[in-house]
Amino acid sequence: MSALSFRLKLRMRNIKLTLLYDGEHFEGWQRQKTGRTVQGVLEQCVLRLTGVPTDVHGSGRTDAGVHALGQVASFKTSSSLPPEIVRRALNATLPADVRVLEAVEVDSEFHARFSATGKRYCYHILLLGSASPFLSRYVWSIPGPLGLDAMREAASLMVGEHDYQAFMASGSAVKSSVRTISELRITQSPKVELLGMALQGELITISVQANGFLRHMVRNIAGTLVEVGRGAYGASEVAAIIASLDRGRAGITAPASGLFLERVFY
Amino acid sequence: MSALSFRLKLRMRNIKLTLLYDGEHFEGWQRQKTGRTVQGVLEQCVLRLTGVPTDVHGSGRTDAGVHALGQVASFKTSSSLPPEIVRRALNATLPADVRVLEAVEVDSEFHARFSATGKRYCYHILLLGSASPFLSRYVWSIPGPLGLDAMREAASLMVGEHDYQAFMASGSAVKSSVRTISELRITQSPKVELLGMALQGELITISVQANGFLRHMVRNIAGTLVEVGRGAYGASEVAAIIASLDRGRAGITAPASGLFLERVFY
Repeated sequence: MSALSFRLKLRMRNIKLTLLYDGEHFEGWQRQKTGRTVQGVLEQCVLRLTGVPTDVHGSGRTDAGVHALGQVASFKTSSSLPPEIVRRALNATLPADVRVLEAVEVDSEFHARFSATGKRYCYHILLLGSASPFLSRYVWSIPGPLGLDAMREAASLMVGEHDYQAFMASGSAVKSSVRTISELRITQSPKVELLGMALQGELITISVQANGFLRHMVRNIAGTLVEVGRGAYGASEVAAIIASLDRGRAGITAPASGLFLERVFY
Repeated sequence: MSALSFRLKLRMRNIKLTLLYDGEHFEGWQRQKTGRTVQGVLEQCVLRLTGVPTDVHGSGRTDAGVHALGQVASFKTSSSLPPEIVRRALNATLPADVRVLEAVEVDSEFHARFSATGKRYCYHILLLGSASPFLSRYVWSIPGPLGLDAMREAASLMVGEHDYQAFMASGSAVKSSVRTISELRITQSPKVELLGMALQGELITISVQANGFLRHMVRNIAGTLVEVGRGAYGASEVAAIIASLDRGRAGITAPASGLFLERVFY
């Protein structure tokens, strides 16, 4: 029996990874010919571990500069290493800005992208204060104040099943731009801390959960809500913006730095 | 009357600045021929504001990578701009990683360095967890656990008036290495947060206040306390280390990233 046929007879296992990364120094999730990407460094580390070139599928792409607290990825391998050893071995070779929080074996049907039923993101806005030198990588720093009542009214109009084409990056190719936002909350914290040290500033966080997201959808929602908060247009106009299906009607695309992929649901 | 003599007759004012900076991309406080320093960028901005080359004196030098929440600096100027306008004008031209928190006019005797009567620093240690990709610039990341009781016992032996030569960077030229540590506290937080998002990890913070600090003194204290926490030597040995006046007896120099100059007292 050749080595090849022996290998082909090994049982393939399906490994699900929960990942956390600081997006600042990544050109996003998706593997590129050049440019450092999260998928690229992960696949290199899986290759080092298993000796076999392996596709690592993510739940979705994150843009350059976007962070993750709970990105999910999956890959198939004939390695018989226990998942906890896989986790430790990957963390031993991965760069410091990406960590594997959890590795578990899942059934062969599971696919990080196609099995996902929803996601939650959060977007952080820092109204200028002394916190900005330390937290600028993780927020959108803007001068305040913002009208939170108007932003919350606008946010409530975005919840539900809608065609979100007005909030989709132009040029995106998708079959349907209909999505269901199940939750869209805006919280305010008048206290900003770093490692328990109090800093001046005020934090506004937008949390959004949906059955799926279009390209730039959270950043376009955040940009639109900030324009409402600044009074550029009224909260009630958001219904007309959604109905227009016109990207030009909605607000600016908020910067990537404030965005965190918090959790993927299956 | 010439322009020069007119200028010489202007009343010189003394401005005290309270500064905050992220030390990651600075080669420390002190101006250098090459290399980006906090003093260097501040002096450039004061020159742009007043048109006059001006020495900006800091309360002390911070090393490359060390952060400040409350560094104090002072400079003399004939500019008649109100201090609050000076603050805003400097913040408008300073890079994003250094901010002026406060600017006030003080009497002509005040000098940021010579008038200082004490300082407080804090040093953050992160026992490995998922927080590390986001907070590595602001902590010393090490594997745990650390024996906090032993660290606290060792810390108590460091408090008081001592000759801290064993904790001074070798080659430092100072008249006296006697200092008085009035407070040295170790706090533990089993919860690490970034912008309200919970991350895995455990944070140990060393807070130290003294009438003055020698070069690398806080980092050498932190390195020694961590070695005690790891059991490399007993807490009670710290008294002998202090008495030895021997830098070779004390622990390693903890990395700059975990260190924050919190406050300067006058």
